[in-house]
Amino acid sequence: MTNRKKLAYIREKIFKLVQHKYFTGTVLGLIIFNAIVVGIETYPSIYESHKLLFFLIDKALIWIFTVEIVLRMIAERKLSDFFKSSWNWFDFLIVAAGHIFVGAHFVTVLRILRVLRVFRAISIIPSLRKLVDALLLTIPALGNIMLLMSIIFYIFAVIGTMLFQEVAPEYFGSLQLSLLTLFQVVTLESWASGVMWPIFHELPWSWIYFVSFVLVGTFVIFNLFIGVIVSNVEKVDAADNVDEKKDIEELKDEVKELKQLIINLSKEKS
Amino acid sequence: MTNRKKLAYIREKIFKLVQHKYFTGTVLGLIIFNAIVVGIETYPSIYESHKLLFFLIDKALIWIFTVEIVLRMIAERKLSDFFKSSWNWFDFLIVAAGHIFVGAHFVTVLRILRVLRVFRAISIIPSLRKLVDALLLTIPALGNIMLLMSIIFYIFAVIGTMLFQEVAPEYFGSLQLSLLTLFQVVTLESWASGVMWPIFHELPWSWIYFVSFVLVGTFVIFNLFIGVIVSNVEKVDAADNVDEKKDIEELKDEVKELKQLIINLSKEKS
Amino acid sequence: MTNRKKLAYIREKIFKLVQHKYFTGTVLGLIIFNAIVVGIETYPSIYESHKLLFFLIDKALIWIFTVEIVLRMIAERKLSDFFKSSWNWFDFLIVAAGHIFVGAHFVTVLRILRVLRVFRAISIIPSLRKLVDALLLTIPALGNIMLLMSIIFYIFAVIGTMLFQEVAPEYFGSLQLSLLTLFQVVTLESWASGVMWPIFHELPWSWIYFVSFVLVGTFVIFNLFIGVIVSNVEKVDAADNVDEKKDIEELKDEVKELKQLIINLSKEKS
Amino acid sequence: MTNRKKLAYIREKIFKLVQHKYFTGTVLGLIIFNAIVVGIETYPSIYESHKLLFFLIDKALIWIFTVEIVLRMIAERKLSDFFKSSWNWFDFLIVAAGHIFVGAHFVTVLRILRVLRVFRAISIIPSLRKLVDALLLTIPALGNIMLLMSIIFYIFAVIGTMLFQEVAPEYFGSLQLSLLTLFQVVTLESWASGVMWPIFHELPWSWIYFVSFVLVGTFVIFNLFIGVIVSNVEKVDAADNVDEKKDIEELKDEVKELKQLIINLSKEKS
Repeated sequence: MTNRKKLAYIREKIFKLVQHKYFTGTVLGLIIFNAIVVGIETYPSIYESHKLLFFLIDKALIWIFTVEIVLRMIAERKLSDFFKSSWNWFDFLIVAAGHIFVGAHFVTVLRILRVLRVFRAISIIPSLRKLVDALLLTIPALGNIMLLMSIIFYIFAVIGTMLFQEVAPEYFGSLQLSLLTLFQVVTLESWASGVMWPIFHELPWSWIYFVSFVLVGTFVIFNLFIGVIVSNVEKVDAADNVDEKKDIEELKDEVKELKQLIINLSKEKS
Repeated sequence: MTNRKKLAYIREKIFKLVQHKYFTGTVLGLIIFNAIVVGIETYPSIYESHKLLFFLIDKALIWIFTVEIVLRMIAERKLSDFFKSSWNWFDFLIVAAGHIFVGAHFVTVLRILRVLRVFRAISIIPSLRKLVDALLLTIPALGNIMLLMSIIFYIFAVIGTMLFQEVAPEYFGSLQLSLLTLFQVVTLESWASGVMWPIFHELPWSWIYFVSFVLVGTFVIFNLFIGVIVSNVEKVDAADNVDEKKDIEELKDEVKELKQLIINLSKEKS
Repeated sequence: MTNRKKLAYIREKIFKLVQHKYFTGTVLGLIIFNAIVVGIETYPSIYESHKLLFFLIDKALIWIFTVEIVLRMIAERKLSDFFKSSWNWFDFLIVAAGHIFVGAHFVTVLRILRVLRVFRAISIIPSLRKLVDALLLTIPALGNIMLLMSIIFYIFAVIGTMLFQEVAPEYFGSLQLSLLTLFQVVTLESWASGVMWPIFHELPWSWIYFVSFVLVGTFVIFNLFIGVIVSNVEKVDAADNVDEKKDIEELKDEVKELKQLIINLSKEKS
Repeated sequence: MTNRKKLAYIREKIFKLVQHKYFTGTVLGLIIFNAIVVGIETYPSIYESHKLLFFLIDKALIWIFTVEIVLRMIAERKLSDFFKSSWNWFDFLIVAAGHIFVGAHFVTVLRILRVLRVFRAISIIPSLRKLVDALLLTIPALGNIMLLMSIIFYIFAVIGTMLFQEVAPEYFGSLQLSLLTLFQVVTLESWASGVMWPIFHELPWSWIYFVSFVLVGTFVIFNLFIGVIVSNVEKVDAADNVDEKKDIEELKDEVKELKQLIINLSKEKS
């Protein structure tokens, strides 16, 4: 029992610690320091002459972040509570991966992980966290239109590969290459000057393929855009209307009460 | 009479069959299978070594789809009911064309048809069907602005051909080429680096043509965009207002009733 | 007096004629015919072998259009009424210019005028006319933001010419060339690949100029866009609110009447 | 005392002077003249042959502007009042810098300052001033999304430098170069034709980097766009609702008064 109490007491202490503004402040500071270090590392001249220093800084940072995550895990009532938040999952995976991929074979993976740790700034700053949550929430609503876009992409990619495989192997050589090219076309980047004109000079009917894809693709993206704007305006309007509806409901109640008063009055009379 | 009843009974059975979720599930599965097959076919190495297999799969698929369409036709009370839906027309034409164009002369057409069958995924998945219906419904509202755009395109294409036919035959060699070039210009793709500058160096006044077309073209597209957003917001607002209007109408009725009560009261008195 | 009456009678007749749907239909038909003719003329092989035919068609068309305009002038009560509509001005100028520029020196001008006559389709079709009127009405509201854009363009053009005149004479050789280049940059067309990178390799600080112009330029255009959307939504909302305001006003009047009734009632009593 | 009164009188006079429409008109005229002069100066042939004239005009202009600023300072009750407006700060700094950087070493700085003086047209024309104030006010609301964008830019720049430093030193040679390249990519300018394809041919997996950056970057910008539109629509709606809310509140008061009247009536009776 005393042991349990002791543990609960320690958990409480740790909870207070990880909630403290200096704790998150320090972690944010370390993340920024981490960001600066990975930035400096990209300069080969500096990196080569201070290899050991960078190695030690990285070791120190990963262990500090590990301790931080472990503390935040202990602070929770149950370990499963910690993993309820997807941001905690994100923090955990980024740090855990740093331990898993240690070894000579994963140098590039480790370096990228070191950079990705900077993303933790988002999970630490509450306003950014909210913003990203809001951004990600708009994605499911786009599910259908993205499925439609995928079907359109796939069909055009297959047809493109079939038709232009031999004429333009650098753009339509294989299915995956065609998909990449179509992504370029849908961003309207060099779709004519780079992709269409050379093929057009060989196959004059090829403009039908490109013009129809540009029209269909931009039309769908355009509608995706409209959909998001309208659904957002709808939300704003709905919030406004709730207020007004409440006002009108109150007015209605008031009038009903009035009616009752008058009915009573006329009853009294008779 | 018994024959007729029997037929009605069979029709009923088939109706239940085609409405069953396993039926549409199987058809969707086959469409996805069809999509994968046409995808694999684009790899010449695989296609060349399994030509017969691909031929047999395609034969099987087209006959299965034919049976599916026929079953769905029988399931309807009248054949004309089937053709009331434009999606059914689409399904029918895609499959029918597969039978019509059999023959050595239409290899490419047949292959494209095989790919276009993947579009049937849209007509099978109800949410996608609704989405595409909604997208297509926005087109008629854009009729006028598209007519205007066509007039602008045509006039600029004729003038462009007249002025730059000799200077830039690769972009303005003929009326149809000019139209294609103007489509490229309106997407702002290489309009300056690719199209204008070479002509500008020959004819320094040519910038007037390009700048005015870019301004007019993007201005019209921009207004098309605005128009769609505003008309959508309008719809949302209108839906909101119907609710509120009803509320206020009810309030009015209530007040009128009140008035009547008071009038009665004062009448009683006198 | 009889002469005057006769004239009034003729004017009435002409008025009925020009308002008749067959009249506008015929004019529209001739405009479409004119459009097809100028389209065919762009093909040198056809044009060269039928030069006389095209000349005669053009002569016929311009005189028919002249008669049409004159009839429409006579149909008006006063000539000044005709020139009250800017569309009539447009029709008049397009046709008048065709007569003014007759002569060997103005061949290109005449040919362009012949093409511009196709724009008369807009002034003939009422729905297009309304649309273009609506589009043009949005321009004055953008006046301030366009003035701001002009100032920004001018300042950047002067600075650009000062800084890059010698490094990139093909883009910044003179003030007018810089303005054209900046217009290209603001459409984001090859602003980096075509314009910035070559200058950047000579003058590494030049990115500040381009990045700041891209940011400022797109920011202003973006706000122009927002402004138009919001002002349009505002209009829609205002129209909705007028309805609702009327409803609530009516309700208020109703309640006031009620109050008067009750006051009367209580007066009667005492 | 008399001295003080005299000063107050002079201040009053100057205040009236600087507020006069002819005063601002003259200043605006001088700014436009200044704009024309710096425009003409960009033509080397004209500039070289009239160097002295341009020098004298500039001297005259800077002293006139200095006098103007000093007058406007005196016109204020306290000097600190003058510096409360950021536009006054802007005017002051632009003119002061012209005096500070006099000297052979700052020729380019001085010339740019001379051009930047044209921006004073904005601070002089009230409608432009309002517009720019409104534009600048939208920036703080975008703070969070810009911070997020910065983090994304930085992370992608570090990873890009790490991965492509050797393959594409012209685009990813150093961290600052990568940031500039990513800015180009996010404007979708030659992101594929210029930047991705050459790297893709060396490192086929590099498309993941570019496609994910384009998707993430445009998605964030897209949401920034949506956010501004929605917040603007919200403002418009809120303004509308204030009116309506007032109306409904009035109605409520009216009904409450009615209720009191009836209660009084029934009290009188009993």
